Amino acid sequence: MKSRAAVAFKAGAPLEIVEIDVAPPKAGEVLVRITHTGVCHTDAFTLSGDDPEGLFPTVLGHEGAGIVVEVGESVTSLAPGDHVIPLYTAECRECKFCKSGKTNLCQKVRATQGKGMMPDGTSRLSYQGQPLYHYMGCSTFSEYTVCNEISLAKINPEAPHEQVCLLGCGVTTGIGAVHNTAKVKPGDTIAVFGLGGIGLAVIQGARQAKAGRILAIDINPGKFEKAREMGATDCINPKDYQKPIQDVIVEMTDGGVDFSFECIGNVDVMRAALECCHKGWGESVIIGVAGAGQEIRTRPFQLVTGRVWRGSAFGGVKGRTQLPGMVEQAMRGEIELAPFVTHTMPLTRINEAFDLMHEGKSIRTVIHFQD
Amino acid sequence: MKSRAAVAFKAGAPLEIVEIDVAPPKAGEVLVRITHTGVCHTDAFTLSGDDPEGLFPTVLGHEGAGIVVEVGESVTSLAPGDHVIPLYTAECRECKFCKSGKTNLCQKVRATQGKGMMPDGTSRLSYQGQPLYHYMGCSTFSEYTVCNEISLAKINPEAPHEQVCLLGCGVTTGIGAVHNTAKVKPGDTIAVFGLGGIGLAVIQGARQAKAGRILAIDINPGKFEKAREMGATDCINPKDYQKPIQDVIVEMTDGGVDFSFECIGNVDVMRAALECCHKGWGESVIIGVAGAGQEIRTRPFQLVTGRVWRGSAFGGVKGRTQLPGMVEQAMRGEIELAPFVTHTMPLTRINEAFDLMHEGKSIRTVIHFQD
Repeated sequence: MKSRAAVAFKAGAPLEIVEIDVAPPKAGEVLVRITHTGVCHTDAFTLSGDDPEGLFPTVLGHEGAGIVVEVGESVTSLAPGDHVIPLYTAECRECKFCKSGKTNLCQKVRATQGKGMMPDGTSRLSYQGQPLYHYMGCSTFSEYTVCNEISLAKINPEAPHEQVCLLGCGVTTGIGAVHNTAKVKPGDTIAVFGLGGIGLAVIQGARQAKAGRILAIDINPGKFEKAREMGATDCINPKDYQKPIQDVIVEMTDGGVDFSFECIGNVDVMRAALECCHKGWGESVIIGVAGAGQEIRTRPFQLVTGRVWRGSAFGGVKGRTQLPGMVEQAMRGEIELAPFVTHTMPLTRINEAFDLMHEGKSIRTVIHFQD
Repeated sequence: MKSRAAVAFKAGAPLEIVEIDVAPPKAGEVLVRITHTGVCHTDAFTLSGDDPEGLFPTVLGHEGAGIVVEVGESVTSLAPGDHVIPLYTAECRECKFCKSGKTNLCQKVRATQGKGMMPDGTSRLSYQGQPLYHYMGCSTFSEYTVCNEISLAKINPEAPHEQVCLLGCGVTTGIGAVHNTAKVKPGDTIAVFGLGGIGLAVIQGARQAKAGRILAIDINPGKFEKAREMGATDCINPKDYQKPIQDVIVEMTDGGVDFSFECIGNVDVMRAALECCHKGWGESVIIGVAGAGQEIRTRPFQLVTGRVWRGSAFGGVKGRTQLPGMVEQAMRGEIELAPFVTHTMPLTRINEAFDLMHEGKSIRTVIHFQD
């Protein structure tokens, strides 16, 4: 079928709004009509050409919500009319990873997804007869897209898509890192590095967890007001200090924080985030995605004296199992999504959404497919 | 009082067996007659001059057992005649760290201990009127030494000192890292890098924890026999492979190990130990002490995809609380200490113990103070 889509024909160029062809879903696949999609830094990272795994031409977008149109053979958990959130981290419930009970990193479709293909090694998306790569198993910058059944969370049909689409990536990643990865407890002191959408979601998660002190760190003080609204107790600009920010935080917190979160993707900040943790027990969680080939480093003494270094992907959330409940939480107001949505616009203006993000003017722009 | 001791007058030189003076214990301090002491790589590291915190002249030794001779004012938990193991990691039960329930890294006497002094800033050890630095709060290479009350674990007086002295450092460090830091569970696959005393203790701990597969890695195949005796299921020499050892282990274990332990102090091996962990949940524990200024490094993707990097000091063991029970376990044969003791000799031959260690011919040499 025909579908309006924003296609990334090559790295570094604006997206082009064109009509693409979407082939019917094969076995285990589902055709979804996307109603809304957020624009995330990861889309921009891939579009920039810096992502070594980036493939072009492609349909980007991985933070969406939509409605099932048609299901392929053998699909049993979804039917036309179901409301869904596409998952870039699938959940097959059958692989070694899913069954371990220790991780959300399902590997069932990992290999083909990384190659921009459906599991049979081909694409359902094309433009003028030329195949387009799928992106992160989602490709939500298209009105119609095809996802694997195991890459779709079935959600409450009453949920407001223009908000819950954000649970497809950023907000879930931040909140989940607090609850699933760090397991923040009441009274804990936490530090959040980087106050974009994920950093703000970490702050919201920390407030839910009843953290005591929430330190928000960014070199752009324009982001502090929103951070305070979300629950930050202290806003810190590293540029205001001569000494390394980790030393500043250790002093401010009588020895360091219980948990820190790196929400930028900067390996030097990752080091600072680890080293501002409290000796003996502080844990640092890397959420940000660093550039190709970059490495984190520290003295091993930091770990031998009790700090822990870990990471989090999609907030440790198992999408099909946990996302429906998070949607319910959002509907009850226990997760607040509205503060993240700073802009809303139609697909035709999607390049503006990238500009706003690059200029630091938006938290999230939500794209809709109405004219 | 007079005491025979092996004094390290300067870095890089052999120890000298001389008669030193030991002053009476002050408030909170205890005079101990050391009966046996192990010689550990950390003693050699400091003696070499590579330890940036090394101070000379000093009395090294931190893996001992002895008997209380005299207690200073206000000492209530110990009395003359009590059998003890000196602790380089004190346990005051009052500081923020002790009370956290999250770490064994008591900080009560940390600052002065690091300066080679007792808490009042002075030394109880001297030679011909010149003060000698204390070492790690223990200085067990002296027949008589003074320790803080909080740096002494009171043990069963029936315990064989010539074996349980090893619980003062190496064996506890290795076994404790398995149980307290990693929390290895039945069936887990583990990898141990470096088959010295600590590595062998990790293997013993892993066997106690009923680990499934225990991979023992060393570039000296002469160490494999003992590792197998202790419980290693696979012995691996990285020199036998062209590819990085982490890749070899990931292949051998269908994706990586559940836990790895670095027992050498080599930052490149620390990286391999992390990267041989299973995606999604594998955890690497750094036990070895790296040289001054050296740094660990890896791509953050290793952590974002679920591996965890942590460290362990003294096996996470709270000395006064847990060591007495470990001594009982050793007496019941649940912890086997005899296999670690490859050599026994009097203090007068202590430099031979260092030679044996440097030549890789000993696991532990136990020094006694009989003539």
